[in-house]
Amino acid sequence: MIVKLTRVEVQSRKDLEMIDITDRIEKAVAESGVKDGLVWAMTSHTSAGLLVTEGIECLERDVLAHLERLAPKQPPEGTYGYWHNRYLDYDGRLGFNAGDHLKSILGGVNCLFPVENGKLIRGSRQRAYFVEYDGPLARTVFIQVLGEA
Amino acid sequence: MIVKLTRVEVQSRKDLEMIDITDRIEKAVAESGVKDGLVWAMTSHTSAGLLVTEGIECLERDVLAHLERLAPKQPPEGTYGYWHNRYLDYDGRLGFNAGDHLKSILGGVNCLFPVENGKLIRGSRQRAYFVEYDGPLARTVFIQVLGEA
Amino acid sequence: MIVKLTRVEVQSRKDLEMIDITDRIEKAVAESGVKDGLVWAMTSHTSAGLLVTEGIECLERDVLAHLERLAPKQPPEGTYGYWHNRYLDYDGRLGFNAGDHLKSILGGVNCLFPVENGKLIRGSRQRAYFVEYDGPLARTVFIQVLGEA
Repeated sequence: MIVKLTRVEVQSRKDLEMIDITDRIEKAVAESGVKDGLVWAMTSHTSAGLLVTEGIECLERDVLAHLERLAPKQPPEGTYGYWHNRYLDYDGRLGFNAGDHLKSILGGVNCLFPVENGKLIRGSRQRAYFVEYDGPLARTVFIQVLGEA
Repeated sequence: MIVKLTRVEVQSRKDLEMIDITDRIEKAVAESGVKDGLVWAMTSHTSAGLLVTEGIECLERDVLAHLERLAPKQPPEGTYGYWHNRYLDYDGRLGFNAGDHLKSILGGVNCLFPVENGKLIRGSRQRAYFVEYDGPLARTVFIQVLGEA
Repeated sequence: MIVKLTRVEVQSRKDLEMIDITDRIEKAVAESGVKDGLVWAMTSHTSAGLLVTEGIECLERDVLAHLERLAPKQPPEGTYGYWHNRYLDYDGRLGFNAGDHLKSILGGVNCLFPVENGKLIRGSRQRAYFVEYDGPLARTVFIQVLGEA
């Protein structure tokens, strides 16, 4: 059994941004030597996510706008605010990104795909996205391939 | 190590529909020959999902109604609309199902269960559902079993 | 290949509660003998969840408050109610926790981490939480480690 863990760097350029990482995951599969098995990826950050959806720019904008609507950066109206919006000793600064952590939870933090005959298997419209909720930042994604040669 | 990938066809009959596929996943486990390992399933579509919840009809209706409330087919009030609601060259038609892609992201697209002594292990109330957000359509679910005989 | 399934008991003390189970998952990894592989955990209940976020108390409160806002125990205003809020023959009591099942679906029910050199790999801020939506109750979490010694 082959087990191969790769750390991939992703640089976001915006506050909210969807970055297609399907090619990176397919590259990890190709380099792993796994013929039949599983590949999965996860963000290593709590104000970013990973999700699978169709790869078109208009939909990327809808996903970001919609998650911002469901888990806004500014506390939702009718609430007194986020508890996380306070001074954090261990950070030496104000917590400010509660809404971004919440987006990460709603949108999810990982994805999985089968590997068959050395290829990542996915639906024809499915793409894997790293989703930045609190950028721009240098980010790390874990990609792991497990299976038989 | 055994790695077994199965493609299961699911035919939805409604626009929004929850289809219990627990038996299909248990069948894939039984046919795989895996005694101890992991089984997981995912939708191959971006306007459909897969999730785990209790298997009762009244709750199925609540799940669908609630996801439609959080990610409606018609753009939410107070917004100008979905970006995805536009003519898509590559499809030769109007994008119309932004809300359904968003439901897929919120509800999730896969599920995992342990396999022990050749049996899928789950909580007594847990059932695995394929969730149609944009039917009726013929759909494909990937089911993969990995483990030792 | 090693496959090790552990059932961990979690006792919630509140109706809504986030319980950090990262140590329990790391213990399962240490006891498994797996050097390189995968560890994953899932709730065995449909009114509880499992998710990954930053481990600070103020954020725990925001997560619970926010999921309650998105999937409230009382049916959202402007709807006639949850279908699940009815007498359930097989339970001999009223269904009452539709909102909690919905929270479980939105927040997710499992988490995965890579195992490398015998250690669970995660981002420096990432913690794994069992999330109680309908407590207090005695709960069971499945933790499975798969990999090579």
